[in-house]
Amino acid sequence: MKVFITGGAGFLGQKLAKKLAGVGKIGDVNVTELILADIITASTPEGASFSTNAITADFSKPDEVKAALACKPDVIFHLAAIVSGEAEKNFDLGYSINVDGFKCMLDAIRDEEEYTPRLVLSSSAAVFGSPVPDSIPDTFHRTPRSSYGTQKAICELYLDDYTRKGFVDGVTLRFSSISVRPGKPNKAATSFFSGIIREPLSGIEAVCPVDRSIRHPIVSPNKAIEFLCLAATLSADLLKDGRAITMPALTSSVGDMIDALERVAGKEAIELIKMEKDDFINGMIGTFQFNFDAKRANSLGFEGDTSFDEIIKAYIEDELGGSVHIAKKQKNVD
Amino acid sequence: MKVFITGGAGFLGQKLAKKLAGVGKIGDVNVTELILADIITASTPEGASFSTNAITADFSKPDEVKAALACKPDVIFHLAAIVSGEAEKNFDLGYSINVDGFKCMLDAIRDEEEYTPRLVLSSSAAVFGSPVPDSIPDTFHRTPRSSYGTQKAICELYLDDYTRKGFVDGVTLRFSSISVRPGKPNKAATSFFSGIIREPLSGIEAVCPVDRSIRHPIVSPNKAIEFLCLAATLSADLLKDGRAITMPALTSSVGDMIDALERVAGKEAIELIKMEKDDFINGMIGTFQFNFDAKRANSLGFEGDTSFDEIIKAYIEDELGGSVHIAKKQKNVD
Repeated sequence: MKVFITGGAGFLGQKLAKKLAGVGKIGDVNVTELILADIITASTPEGASFSTNAITADFSKPDEVKAALACKPDVIFHLAAIVSGEAEKNFDLGYSINVDGFKCMLDAIRDEEEYTPRLVLSSSAAVFGSPVPDSIPDTFHRTPRSSYGTQKAICELYLDDYTRKGFVDGVTLRFSSISVRPGKPNKAATSFFSGIIREPLSGIEAVCPVDRSIRHPIVSPNKAIEFLCLAATLSADLLKDGRAITMPALTSSVGDMIDALERVAGKEAIELIKMEKDDFINGMIGTFQFNFDAKRANSLGFEGDTSFDEIIKAYIEDELGGSVHIAKKQKNVD
Repeated sequence: MKVFITGGAGFLGQKLAKKLAGVGKIGDVNVTELILADIITASTPEGASFSTNAITADFSKPDEVKAALACKPDVIFHLAAIVSGEAEKNFDLGYSINVDGFKCMLDAIRDEEEYTPRLVLSSSAAVFGSPVPDSIPDTFHRTPRSSYGTQKAICELYLDDYTRKGFVDGVTLRFSSISVRPGKPNKAATSFFSGIIREPLSGIEAVCPVDRSIRHPIVSPNKAIEFLCLAATLSADLLKDGRAITMPALTSSVGDMIDALERVAGKEAIELIKMEKDDFINGMIGTFQFNFDAKRANSLGFEGDTSFDEIIKAYIEDELGGSVHIAKKQKNVD
């Protein structure tokens, strides 16, 4: 199985690449080649039993998309995107990359003879918008309240129709905010959800721009990778009711997240969080206070995180070597 | 109020133009100018108290769209579209006109300084797709099962986001199939719904390509015009939960429609209907067996048709001068 990842230099693309290098397969199928595509050159994972390549391509340029996909991968993970905060501030850039770029990719696939790859689109809970019920069912309408959410909803519709016509074999996963992300803050409006956990765990101050009472659905990086891999091999027979699936999420208040950080890493950690409300971000995030019933996802084998404490512990294990450094002290975690 | 109609040469555009010429206003606001835009030259209505113009423009060409809208109309009715059957058979043409053309129009409006017209988009019940509940609520997800439905759903999303950003003041009306349409069959997969009533009423044979048991939501031309006019002046305050509104429809089986024709026009009429099943059309129409609860529309003042007999009688009144001609006989209708 030849695997292609757009946004291959990004956090999720890199984590997925490392996972594939480690296990060598998706489901029961061996990976034979991995291509990481991005606008910058991605790092390729070490220790893979298959060939790995990084290619650079601008996915808003039809010729570059066509050239990149000429290798006819069996599975494409489409993770590249202009993130929410940036898409909201730069209207044209967001539509150009998130919609037109995706459409370019679909048309490049359609243009190839006898080629119908599985395409896994990373979509977002931002396709939903208030007012919402206490628990959002799988049949709830898409009413995005952001340009990013609109762009993802449009991509979902394109993917469904191109799939129905037999041009591609698409699956859309609607992810909630992925936290805890390693590395630096990005331009997503939700970036601080990772920041208020990640920075204190490294002894660095973090700003929380929203009220403690704001509730938000979260998925851990490990679960996101697990979901992507499951989507890559999901039988088309199971997808007759539509190709877009809302992924399970753990919905907690910001206060609950901070309390979990205190339980796992102590008072020193949470003292590094500065509550400095930003009305732009608070307003935008306030419209995303969602619970999902995720019945369809559960029935297909997608099972979400169960505890925010566990998400923090997994971050410490995966990214910090199992221990945390706060205020120049080292503290072991159980 | 300067009014602009795309698809102005089409059936609905012409009917709307005649209505405006007759009453001279929309809601309480006087019409001061009417522009009918289409790819062919539209007829302008007679007897209007305001100036009327027909302009030709290809709405897939950005320059032509920009030039057409330079007159800065206050209200734009966007009725132009590649219809369902044609969009299903000609994939690229459908997306080019129905999506890219609409996006061109939105961008042309956005490019004008200090200009935020009310734009009424004619969308379709085809944005929904099976499986559906017995009665589709306003919060039901858009899962189109046709390229036409997908294109309309994408336009709805664009219009919502451009409205949210303040670039335009959009309202989407989701119409069910409009019947009884006068004139000739068009390339919509639903065209026969009008044909099986219209043709017999003029003494002409008509083919019914679907089973009698197939149920379908219908809106009469007069109601469609009434809905468009209401949408043109609806206060933005009432639209905070989203700009797309599912219009009320009268859902009947094909058998019920034929029975209504017999009640209104006699046995001679229905003997002219030939049941010749077309699997392509039967399959496509079979996925549109919808009832809508239309609660939101009702709360905003949109009230649907109540009887298919009345729809047929209104067609005879409006289009046939109040009497029908079947098998060379003339028959008066009550």
